[in-house]
Amino acid sequence: MKKRIRLLATGGTIASGEGAQGLRPSLSAREVLAYLPGLDALCDAEAEDILFLDSSNIQPEEWRVIARACAAALEDCDGVVVTHGTDTMAYTAAILSFMLQGLQKPVILTGSQLPITHLMSDGRTNLANAFAAACAGHPGVYVVFNNRIIAGTRAFKVRSMGFDAFRSVNAPYAGEVDARGVRMEHPLPVQPGPLRLLDRVEPAVCLIKLIPGTNPALFDALIPLGYRGVVVEAFGVGGFHYLRRNLLPRLEALHRAGVVVLVTSQCLYDATDLPRYETGARLSPGAAVAAGDMTTEAAVTKLMWALGQTADPREVERILLTPLCGEIRGAAPGTPGRGGSASPAPRH
Amino acid sequence: MKKRIRLLATGGTIASGEGAQGLRPSLSAREVLAYLPGLDALCDAEAEDILFLDSSNIQPEEWRVIARACAAALEDCDGVVVTHGTDTMAYTAAILSFMLQGLQKPVILTGSQLPITHLMSDGRTNLANAFAAACAGHPGVYVVFNNRIIAGTRAFKVRSMGFDAFRSVNAPYAGEVDARGVRMEHPLPVQPGPLRLLDRVEPAVCLIKLIPGTNPALFDALIPLGYRGVVVEAFGVGGFHYLRRNLLPRLEALHRAGVVVLVTSQCLYDATDLPRYETGARLSPGAAVAAGDMTTEAAVTKLMWALGQTADPREVERILLTPLCGEIRGAAPGTPGRGGSASPAPRH
Repeated sequence: MKKRIRLLATGGTIASGEGAQGLRPSLSAREVLAYLPGLDALCDAEAEDILFLDSSNIQPEEWRVIARACAAALEDCDGVVVTHGTDTMAYTAAILSFMLQGLQKPVILTGSQLPITHLMSDGRTNLANAFAAACAGHPGVYVVFNNRIIAGTRAFKVRSMGFDAFRSVNAPYAGEVDARGVRMEHPLPVQPGPLRLLDRVEPAVCLIKLIPGTNPALFDALIPLGYRGVVVEAFGVGGFHYLRRNLLPRLEALHRAGVVVLVTSQCLYDATDLPRYETGARLSPGAAVAAGDMTTEAAVTKLMWALGQTADPREVERILLTPLCGEIRGAAPGTPGRGGSASPAPRH
Repeated sequence: MKKRIRLLATGGTIASGEGAQGLRPSLSAREVLAYLPGLDALCDAEAEDILFLDSSNIQPEEWRVIARACAAALEDCDGVVVTHGTDTMAYTAAILSFMLQGLQKPVILTGSQLPITHLMSDGRTNLANAFAAACAGHPGVYVVFNNRIIAGTRAFKVRSMGFDAFRSVNAPYAGEVDARGVRMEHPLPVQPGPLRLLDRVEPAVCLIKLIPGTNPALFDALIPLGYRGVVVEAFGVGGFHYLRRNLLPRLEALHRAGVVVLVTSQCLYDATDLPRYETGARLSPGAAVAAGDMTTEAAVTKLMWALGQTADPREVERILLTPLCGEIRGAAPGTPGRGGSASPAPRH
C-alpha cells in the first residue's frame, strides 16, 4: 500500500515568483506539487498551504503554526514534507526537533535556491528527494537538500546562493540520496512515543556575536529589553576579552539578573570548552552554560524552547545540557563546565 | 644571500603553557623559534616579543601595535611572520591588510591549535611554513595554516579544535605548501608602493547577528551606546523580518542617526544581494551598505578602519565598496545596492 505523505507549504524561494520588490512566495502547495509529475507512483501526496512567507519572516509564532500542522498531519499521514525558505530553515528544523518530542514518523524540510518554476531550479530534485525520504520512514526531523539528509538540529546554511547550501555540523550526514535511492547511514535514534507537541517557546532571547573590542555596555543594555536568555557566540572554544573591555562581569551580571547565558563558538565546527583557556576559565562557574557542540541555530532554538517549558533558570540549564534529539553530545568525563550533568555520549 | 625575516610574537596557543586557570601565553619569541632547529638554513630569523596575549584579548588597540611593529620591521627585513592566537587571527589578518596599504613585502600570520611544546602540536609545521612563505616573497598579508595559504581578508576560523582550522572564503586559496615547497597559485595583486601605515581605527562598531524573532528595540538600544557603525549579519542574501517585529525602520533610524550600517550574511559563502528578495528590497535605498562577498571579519574590520580614516559617512560607504586588498569583488554590472560605485572585478 502506498504511503500517505502531506506537503505542508510555508512559502520560500521554491514557491516564489518575481514581485514588484524582488522575489516573493506566490505558488500554492498544489502548484508546487505539479512540478513532480511522477510523484503518485511513489506515494499518495496531499498538499496544504499553512503559510505564505519568505523564511526571513518565519519567527517563533510561525514555528508553532508549523509544529501544530505537523502534529495534525501525522495523526493520519505516514510522514510530512515541509517546504520552507532556506534562510531560516536550519532554525525551523531545530525548533521542530524540540517541539515534536517522541516523533514516530518523518518530518522532512526542504526548499531551493531558485524557484521551482525556473529551468535550472534545484527545487524539483530537493522536493522529490524529500518525498522519498518521507517514504523511507525514518522517524525524526531532517533537512533534505542537494541529495544530502541532515538531522534537523545539525543543519547550517553555508551558502547564500550555491545549490550545495547546507552542511551537517558536528555530526555525520544522516543519509544521502543516490541512484540506489534514500540511504540512511546515520539515522537519528528513535525516541519513545507517543508524539508530544511541546510548542511553547520564549522569543525573548538575544544572540550576541563577539568581535574584538566588543563594548561591555552592550550586555548591560540587554537587561532593560527584558531578555530571559542570551546566546553569546564567543571566540574559539569560548573566549572573552577582559583587557580594558572586561566582558566577564557583564555576563555575570546578566546571570544574576536571572538571564540564562549560553555560550557557543563563532567557529562552525567543534565545540566550546570554557575552562581550556584563561580567557574562558575566568568566567565564574555557573554564570554561563557552554553549548558544547551545538550549532548556534540549535542553541538559540533550544534556549527559547527550554524557557518556554519552565520558569526556573536552573531547570532551563539542565534541559540545555541534556541531549534530546541529536543536538548535543554529552560532555566528556572530567570536563567541568561542559555539561557534566548530561549523560555522556560517544563522539563520532 | 639569505633573506632576513622577523618573527613578531603576540602570544596565542602556539606560545602557551598550562597556567593556574587554563592555557595562557608563556613562551618568548626566541623560545618558540628554538622549536625550528633547521630554520637558519632557510633565512636569517630575528625574534621580537611585541605582545603576550591570548587572541581573545587582541582588540583594536593591539591591532595598531602589531601594524606598527610590522611597518618598523619591514624597514630593514624582507618579510615578517606574526605568531598569533587562532581565535581572532582572521580579524587581525584582515585589519593588517587595510592598515598596511601599499605593502611590498610579505606579512604572514600563523599560530596553532596546540602549544608548540606539545608532542602533537601543529605549531612547528605552521611556523616553518610561515617562514617559508615569508621567504617566498609574495607581497601582502596572508594566513598560513595547515599547509594552506589564505589572503588575509579571506580567512575564517572554521574549527575550534581541528588542525584544519581555517578556510579561504569566497576566494581560492592563495597557495599551499607541499613537498615542492611554497606554491602560490593565486597570490594577491601587488599594490603600488611605498608602504603607508594607516593604522587609525574606530572601535565603536557593533556586530548584530539576526535570529528569528530579533527584537527591533535591540537596534534602538545601540544609539545611546555611541556606535558609529553597525554590521548586521542578516539571513541569506540579506533578509530581515518585517512581520510583527519590523527591523527595517530601526535600521533606517540608525542610518538617520549617522551610523553606517553594513549588511553581511550569516551564510559562510557567497554574497549579499539586498534587492533579490522582498525581505531585503524593502529596506530604503541608501539606508545600508551591502557587504557583497566580504567575510564578516573583513566587513567588521574594514568598517572600523574606514571610520578611522574619515568622519564623513558617505566617504565611509564609498571606501567600504571599493576593493582595496582582495576583500571584496566589485559588483556585477546592473545590480544596484551591491557596490555599484566599486570597480567591477571578475568572479573566480
